[in-house]
Amino acid sequence: MKKDKPKYRQIIDAAVIVIAENGYHQAQVSKIAKQAGVADGTIYLYFKNKEDILISVFSEKMSVFVENLKVIIQESITAQEMLARMIEGHFKVLSEDHHLAVVTQLELRQSNKDLRLKINHILKEYLDLLDDILQRGIQAGEFIEDMDLRLVRQVIFGTVDEVSTTWVMKDQKYDLVEMAPRVHEILLKGIQTQ
Amino acid sequence: MKKDKPKYRQIIDAAVIVIAENGYHQAQVSKIAKQAGVADGTIYLYFKNKEDILISVFSEKMSVFVENLKVIIQESITAQEMLARMIEGHFKVLSEDHHLAVVTQLELRQSNKDLRLKINHILKEYLDLLDDILQRGIQAGEFIEDMDLRLVRQVIFGTVDEVSTTWVMKDQKYDLVEMAPRVHEILLKGIQTQ
Ligand SMILES: CCCCCCCCCCCCCCCCCC(=O)SCCNC(=O)CCNC(=O)[C@H](O)C(C)(C)COP(=O)(O)OP(=O)(O)OC[C@H]1O[C@@H](n2cnc3c(N)ncnc32)[C@H](O)[C@@H]1OP(=O)(O)O
Ligand SMILES: CCCCCCCCCCCCCCCCCC(=O)SCCNC(=O)CCNC(=O)[C@H](O)C(C)(C)COP(=O)(O)OP(=O)(O)OC[C@H]1O[C@@H](n2cnc3c(N)ncnc32)[C@H](O)[C@@H]1OP(=O)(O)O
Repeated sequence: MKKDKPKYRQIIDAAVIVIAENGYHQAQVSKIAKQAGVADGTIYLYFKNKEDILISVFSEKMSVFVENLKVIIQESITAQEMLARMIEGHFKVLSEDHHLAVVTQLELRQSNKDLRLKINHILKEYLDLLDDILQRGIQAGEFIEDMDLRLVRQVIFGTVDEVSTTWVMKDQKYDLVEMAPRVHEILLKGIQTQ
Repeated sequence: MKKDKPKYRQIIDAAVIVIAENGYHQAQVSKIAKQAGVADGTIYLYFKNKEDILISVFSEKMSVFVENLKVIIQESITAQEMLARMIEGHFKVLSEDHHLAVVTQLELRQSNKDLRLKINHILKEYLDLLDDILQRGIQAGEFIEDMDLRLVRQVIFGTVDEVSTTWVMKDQKYDLVEMAPRVHEILLKGIQTQ
């Protein structure tokens, strides 16, 4: 498998840095090659083009996240706990890699329809696990039984994503992970007084 | 004032269509001029460049929305009602103009930092009114007293925005406005069983 070769990972990691620092449109393949310390031609042994690199970056990072999320689901007792750890995990991934956060929150928001469909197809793996958590919570009587699952999934992802984007737009200058418990509480209890 | 001239509005309306149909990067000023039925040179009497057109589109549409939101705040008795009508109003603006929805949900998400700061500065007018609603609700005892206002604002805007983007990505094929009451309820009560 090409993906197991060290150079594949080297190019992926270089791409995250070059895309974050230059923007996707100004991130020429030659810049990525230079950052990775490989010849331009080497890139094309692993990737079709720049679009393929962007999608592979997201796909690679997402599959690590999804594997972690599966472990979280296995390890947790309650659905509330799964949700708490999912939110914290999301913020942690972004906090630990400054460049990756810029790529996911700004550069992956490409308006090109075709590219966007591919990105959202990868995002679906994550949203499917969120659905799984919600369903477990409903079954256990923790979450409202007649909730609109499709909508609640958008509320949760939309919240986590907006909190992340605001933090990136504020140059990541405060602690994102620290906000996880408060985000979790608002999603569980809403804003209304009891 | 230039802004009161009919051609200014004509160009703004044309820009929404051309940007939605071609994408911001492929929306040449000459295409916008053609759609507006004016000479290329006329555009430059009103706008500095294409970036200025995009920002003016958002600014113009946002100021109409913000004025409506101020009326909603005046007319409503409770903060809960203000919030309900704000969410519904947001979805209505997007539902009523197919092209505008594509522009706000996909094309305004430009990663260019400078442009993005200008867009977010305009967005702030909206978020300030949302803060106003939240503060009124806290004072009236409707909303949780010790809420993190900055965070709750992100939860609400993030939710409304994600529901809108999903609907645009699904080619606007279902009724967005109809979802407003359910969105409102989740934000007020959360997803936890009582
Ligand atoms: C065509 C138009 C149609 C119009 C019709 C309208 C109706 C329909 C709607 C359409 C809406 C669609 C909009 C599309 C917008 C496109 C843009 C997006 O992508 S939106 C989707 C993506 N979302 C975005 O892009 C939104 C990104 N957000 C932002 O850029 C900003 O939050 C802001 C500009 C909105 C407000 O900024 P600001 O005025 O500064 O106010 P803050 O309170 O945020 O901050 C105050 C201070 O608090 C600090 N602080 C905050 N949190 C924490 C914390 N936890 N711990 C410690 N500190 C914290 C923070 O650092 C700051 O300190 P400093 O920096 O001053 O020292
Ligand atoms: C570098 C990587 C780092 C990875 C590490 C990971 C951890 C950290 C995280 C990073 C995350 C950041 C991600 C960045 C992603 C960039 C993309 C964005 O901008 S995201 C921010 C912006 N957000 C987005 O771009 C997300 C946009 N969303 C989507 O594109 C899609 O929802 C989907 C692809 C996600 C799932 O699609 P699908 O599999 O189809 O599943 P659905 O259930 O949605 O739909 C099922 C059916 O139900 C229909 N239906 C739905 N609602 C209603 C209704 N109310 N009434 C009636 N019908 C409704 C609907 O039409 C469909 O019918 P049909 O069409 O099949 O006939």
